[in-house]
Amino acid sequence: MVVTLVGAGNLATNLGAALQKNGHEIRQVWSRTEASAKTLAQRLSCDWTTDISTLATEADVVVLSVKDNALEELSRRLASASRTKQSKALFVHTAGSMPLTALSQQRSGVFYPMQTFSKTRLADFSNIPIFLETQYAEDLPLLRSLAESLSHSVYELPSEKRRFLHLAAVFACNFANRCYDIASEILEPEGIPFSVMLPLIDETAQKVHTLTPKDAQTGPAIRWDENVMEKHLLLLDDKEKELYRLLSQSIHERQKQ
Amino acid sequence: MVVTLVGAGNLATNLGAALQKNGHEIRQVWSRTEASAKTLAQRLSCDWTTDISTLATEADVVVLSVKDNALEELSRRLASASRTKQSKALFVHTAGSMPLTALSQQRSGVFYPMQTFSKTRLADFSNIPIFLETQYAEDLPLLRSLAESLSHSVYELPSEKRRFLHLAAVFACNFANRCYDIASEILEPEGIPFSVMLPLIDETAQKVHTLTPKDAQTGPAIRWDENVMEKHLLLLDDKEKELYRLLSQSIHERQKQ
Repeated sequence: MVVTLVGAGNLATNLGAALQKNGHEIRQVWSRTEASAKTLAQRLSCDWTTDISTLATEADVVVLSVKDNALEELSRRLASASRTKQSKALFVHTAGSMPLTALSQQRSGVFYPMQTFSKTRLADFSNIPIFLETQYAEDLPLLRSLAESLSHSVYELPSEKRRFLHLAAVFACNFANRCYDIASEILEPEGIPFSVMLPLIDETAQKVHTLTPKDAQTGPAIRWDENVMEKHLLLLDDKEKELYRLLSQSIHERQKQ
Repeated sequence: MVVTLVGAGNLATNLGAALQKNGHEIRQVWSRTEASAKTLAQRLSCDWTTDISTLATEADVVVLSVKDNALEELSRRLASASRTKQSKALFVHTAGSMPLTALSQQRSGVFYPMQTFSKTRLADFSNIPIFLETQYAEDLPLLRSLAESLSHSVYELPSEKRRFLHLAAVFACNFANRCYDIASEILEPEGIPFSVMLPLIDETAQKVHTLTPKDAQTGPAIRWDENVMEKHLLLLDDKEKELYRLLSQSIHERQKQ
């Protein structure tokens, strides 16, 4: 398929590379800034622009992969620009947190690959769950075909449920990563390399493949071991103290269920 | 070596199995309750007791692997019982959070395998970092030899630094797992299986093998995307709202550094 990418961030970069690797043609990349448009276009050897009104919408699918708070306005600008408003393409966005209705286009959809993307580490899409939604049922096969060319894990999911999925992803990924990061901040002044944590981090992730997270839970908060917890609190500054207390309470309450 | 295990919890169960698998003899298992003493002793085909004063301390190493808040008292009882106080064994505990001085024995040490252990999932010790400390320098080679028979990742670390390591482990493991668990609680009423989160959880863990957690961080909190965050808060109950706010602030502040 021919795909135009609106956006050049972490997700657009990873998606563009995966689409191209799987035989699709990236028609053009748009970004607000010339630097990032050029960077991704060079990576994909394709055309680029920073002028949304001249976007190359002669494509099968136009993917809007921009900051959530820029999505609606960009979609409106595309819908009103004379060159792009006649487009026959299917317009999809990639934002787990945004409803389908964030797009002004008639033929619209959502293509949400649930993963944590960084530009410096290209993700393997083959097992990334991709959640789809389309305004018109007849557009679903096209979007499903695109998704299945990248991943063997493709689902249809309405906006109403996707927002819970996105929220769950923030906990399981963004907040879990912040926990890793706090660990790194604790170790750094002690001269202990963060790499010693990796077997523990890996096993913590692996455990929930075979146990529920509730059953996999370990640590002093389960048994409310105040002796240990008080000693831990003494080592933390105020902000992390509060996080420590809340997370410990949350673990303790959950295990009583 | 001949090892007596004091404790029959998650760590003792995993350590006992790993020691036996690697050719060591488990002399005896002690537990406060007969049920758990028997369960582990059967698993290891060894002797068991619930009477600490009759513990079989004719061993190379006696491993105290009990709840942190029970450790000191148990060690004192062992040191004062007539049968055990003459023991020539090296007494070690496995508690990351406790100092070496928690043990009353003269020949004492710490053997801290930093991992999350569950009885229902036996861990592979070969890449588990084990942190050692001994009261007497001449006991270190014995303990190192025991540790290296299980793992290729063995370090000497004093109590003063180990408490930071243990605190870091609480964040990277216990708190990260609670984040997975909150994700599962969010998905459950929506009928979305937790298994869809596994590729994201795995990649989040894998990313910090090649990026620092700070560089690996993604999500709405980095760019303080209030639109998304406000929508998320509406989906959470009060306790999780507060956690969401604190973790988001913590991410945002960190990324400004």
